[in-house]
Amino acid sequence: MRVYNFSAGPAMLPLAALEAARSELTDWQGSGMSVMEVSHRGKAFVECAAETEALLRELMGIPQNYRVLFLQGGASGQFDAIPMNLAAEGDPVAFLNTGQWSAKAIKAARTQGLAVSVLADEAASNYTTTPAAGSYTVDPTASYLHYTPNETIGGVEFGYVPDAGAVPLVADLSSTILSRPIDVAKYGLIYAGAQKNMGPSGLCVVIVRDDLLGRARPTTPAIWNYQAMAAADSMLNTPPTFGIYLLGKILAWVKESGGLEGMAERNRAKATALYGFIDASDYYSNPVALDSRSWMNVPFLQAHPELDKTFVTEATSAGLTSLAGHRSVGGMRASIYNAMPLEGVQALIDFMTDFERRNG
Amino acid sequence: MRVYNFSAGPAMLPLAALEAARSELTDWQGSGMSVMEVSHRGKAFVECAAETEALLRELMGIPQNYRVLFLQGGASGQFDAIPMNLAAEGDPVAFLNTGQWSAKAIKAARTQGLAVSVLADEAASNYTTTPAAGSYTVDPTASYLHYTPNETIGGVEFGYVPDAGAVPLVADLSSTILSRPIDVAKYGLIYAGAQKNMGPSGLCVVIVRDDLLGRARPTTPAIWNYQAMAAADSMLNTPPTFGIYLLGKILAWVKESGGLEGMAERNRAKATALYGFIDASDYYSNPVALDSRSWMNVPFLQAHPELDKTFVTEATSAGLTSLAGHRSVGGMRASIYNAMPLEGVQALIDFMTDFERRNG
Repeated sequence: MRVYNFSAGPAMLPLAALEAARSELTDWQGSGMSVMEVSHRGKAFVECAAETEALLRELMGIPQNYRVLFLQGGASGQFDAIPMNLAAEGDPVAFLNTGQWSAKAIKAARTQGLAVSVLADEAASNYTTTPAAGSYTVDPTASYLHYTPNETIGGVEFGYVPDAGAVPLVADLSSTILSRPIDVAKYGLIYAGAQKNMGPSGLCVVIVRDDLLGRARPTTPAIWNYQAMAAADSMLNTPPTFGIYLLGKILAWVKESGGLEGMAERNRAKATALYGFIDASDYYSNPVALDSRSWMNVPFLQAHPELDKTFVTEATSAGLTSLAGHRSVGGMRASIYNAMPLEGVQALIDFMTDFERRNG
Repeated sequence: MRVYNFSAGPAMLPLAALEAARSELTDWQGSGMSVMEVSHRGKAFVECAAETEALLRELMGIPQNYRVLFLQGGASGQFDAIPMNLAAEGDPVAFLNTGQWSAKAIKAARTQGLAVSVLADEAASNYTTTPAAGSYTVDPTASYLHYTPNETIGGVEFGYVPDAGAVPLVADLSSTILSRPIDVAKYGLIYAGAQKNMGPSGLCVVIVRDDLLGRARPTTPAIWNYQAMAAADSMLNTPPTFGIYLLGKILAWVKESGGLEGMAERNRAKATALYGFIDASDYYSNPVALDSRSWMNVPFLQAHPELDKTFVTEATSAGLTSLAGHRSVGGMRASIYNAMPLEGVQALIDFMTDFERRNG
């Protein structure tokens, strides 16, 4: 029996992708080997990686002047790798700070010796807001503007793409990639850890515009040097092969489910239902500003916070798992990434209704 | 049908481990979730990682004053991470160069600004030898001595552990870890990409002595900072959860198969059979010095090199795959890591016998 898993990441994956992987786990494509056992430089795996990249390009509409890299080290690794690749020591860079993930990226950029300007900092609202478009100005000499389109802990999401002018826009899309169509051409660099909408942890996808290659500091580790990795088709060293393979299976599921338009429809319906229920309730509440609510991570509080643990325990028994809020903010949180069906959100709403009836 | 897979890595894995993973791929421990879908900070996965570490400690006899880290970026990532963690810019470090993997580690250390001394360089033998014990002296001021106990491309392996005196010995054990007992206490740091004897690619295990923590340069990326990662039980960021889980399954298989003594017996028998056959043949040859032959990677040549492609094609048809030699050295190569049974080596010898009969 499968449960509805509301984990913030690693997170629920499409059952179809897991079942496809299971069916060939010891014998991939009739090779007599698992996909985990084949050489990354062999024809079969090189084709698998190329097909995965092609499908990602097709679904996201990635322009030809962008390179797709399959890296290791997660988004956290990129917090250091991006400054190393895109800026010299002392160069000015700009950040928007909307939560704990932005803050970690800022800290790493400072550690790498950049002159960091934080153009907007939403700490005053306890990270329940995003800065309004036009409320900040990007220094045209900045090497890049970095922001976090969706913060998983606060459940805060930008309702717009920041305008950085000619300054490359860098976005940590770990928790929103593939959740709806985006215009890749607006970004200089997109990066995303796989473990929310793209597969198992251990794979990080970087989508980088050609003109940003070749700027890496000489001390940049080879496996994070974008130009070197682009030249080697992400195989300068052994890539996380199983993650790339499973990403391919998940992309196939996305395509069969209507592509990114289909995902947007699915995710809009889930978010509308859950926020609608919370807003109509006197018992539950969501602390985030209306224009900054995340489609992917919905934190919520109940009128009796002393019952939070009971809520989580009873929900788990009802097959609704991983609903505890992040330890830094408390309460509950429902992460409803691509793989969560509307039925899962409806089951959560039904449980919340019953819990309120019994405890409200 | 499974084949005998002689790939140098990613490589053959124990079928029992793959089947165990398959049986619970969509429902791990009755949780209704795949192990890939659960939070790395949840009780179930934290226990899984702790059990995997405990089993590795038990099998390898890792002393209490060593930390085990589960990292990302492979051994290639550690080529940069080790200098960052263990030496300041300009510090002297020593290397033994026995092949392409040593050379990559040397290049990265130079890139990270270290004063590299190569104490022995086997290039003159075309990397078919290892330096004799006692033929080099380690500068006692060196931050560490780095060597590659087994080179997968040349099929060259040290028959002894170098004596570096009080200088920490650093070893890239990617291709030999778990293949036989070792005395961990002789090393300051051991590292190994998982994709030969430990599991899928994307996981790198670092075993580091306590006193070597806390020396990292401030610019060391957080996810590679040994002290920070040790303090966070390897969960400063999301670890490669599926790789850690599968390592646990593989370690269980190693234990059931007699532990590292059992692996040594198994691997000795395979190597003895294959080298014995090659040495007795006038048709096949192995170029490596007798005292430096690898238990794990056996390169071999045939009297008619123009038939190399035919050999590989016919072997594949016979269910013996990935036998082409590395592109830089040609010929053939049989990688016979832990998971390769003696029956696989015997099947290879039978095929080689028949091939010689038909073409010799």
